[in-house]
Amino acid sequence: MHSAYATIVQLTQMLGNIVGWLDKAEAHAKAKTFDTAVFLSARLAPDQYPLVRQIQSACDAAKFAGARLAGKEPPKNPDTEASLPEIRKRIADTVAFLNTLEETDFANAKDRLVPLPWMPGKAMTGYDYLTQLAVPNFFFHLAHTYAILRHNGVNLGKQDYINTLTLKDL
Amino acid sequence: MHSAYATIVQLTQMLGNIVGWLDKAEAHAKAKTFDTAVFLSARLAPDQYPLVRQIQSACDAAKFAGARLAGKEPPKNPDTEASLPEIRKRIADTVAFLNTLEETDFANAKDRLVPLPWMPGKAMTGYDYLTQLAVPNFFFHLAHTYAILRHNGVNLGKQDYINTLTLKDL
Repeated sequence: MHSAYATIVQLTQMLGNIVGWLDKAEAHAKAKTFDTAVFLSARLAPDQYPLVRQIQSACDAAKFAGARLAGKEPPKNPDTEASLPEIRKRIADTVAFLNTLEETDFANAKDRLVPLPWMPGKAMTGYDYLTQLAVPNFFFHLAHTYAILRHNGVNLGKQDYINTLTLKDL
Repeated sequence: MHSAYATIVQLTQMLGNIVGWLDKAEAHAKAKTFDTAVFLSARLAPDQYPLVRQIQSACDAAKFAGARLAGKEPPKNPDTEASLPEIRKRIADTVAFLNTLEETDFANAKDRLVPLPWMPGKAMTGYDYLTQLAVPNFFFHLAHTYAILRHNGVNLGKQDYINTLTLKDL
């Protein structure tokens, strides 16, 4: 029904939605006169990732899914972002990389064996990797990014999360 | 690359993962000697859904995606769950309904027009509905369910979220 490429396009669009959330976060911080960097260390539990790492992880889930299924080398990101402009650049760079991938790159994605770096000797098929790991992991970090901002008073709604729908007249 | 049916199977499996999270939530409540029903009203922001409605919404996102793309009537759920056993039953009933759907039911899923009840006169193709709305919405409520439990001290980890991976030897 749909290709790995189409899934990567969808993840790329949703990753880009974070930019609008950060616009609202900045407006909120300005209205309340606190430093926007405070958001980056906010977390929902002491042993969960803070916002900055949730965003880095969402970027990486999309980046690695795109690169591994297209058979391309993923760009390296040292995870050193420490400000809102820096994390915005991380998102923009990831979106730009994902946009270099073309539908033809994914011709063999379904059956491509994806090695798991943290499980030496083990791999998943491209199909299983995408559906069982990459997509759930991407949405986990995307939704946690949203939840941390909402928990800290940013006025987000489902429209900000879903953003654009392709509608047809009945 | 993959069918709408395969996506519904994946959502069904992940919906079932919540049962394990509730097991851990119950153990946590027992150790701390508080009523498990406290979890159901927990939320991350005053104007976000509490846990019980996050779980109901995850169930509904999966139920409606399965029903609409298979052209079946979805079972009705009045959203009256008020205890952990009741919300467990909601999950079990939703999983049982989704398991009645067969791959052949989804033969026309990609191009089927899905009307949007809250937007009279508008619809989405099955493909767009699944990728732009149903899947992101499902994972939104699934991850918020997880986040609310974590925020309230339940000892969950990524393993509980992802659960089973289909591995191959390299």
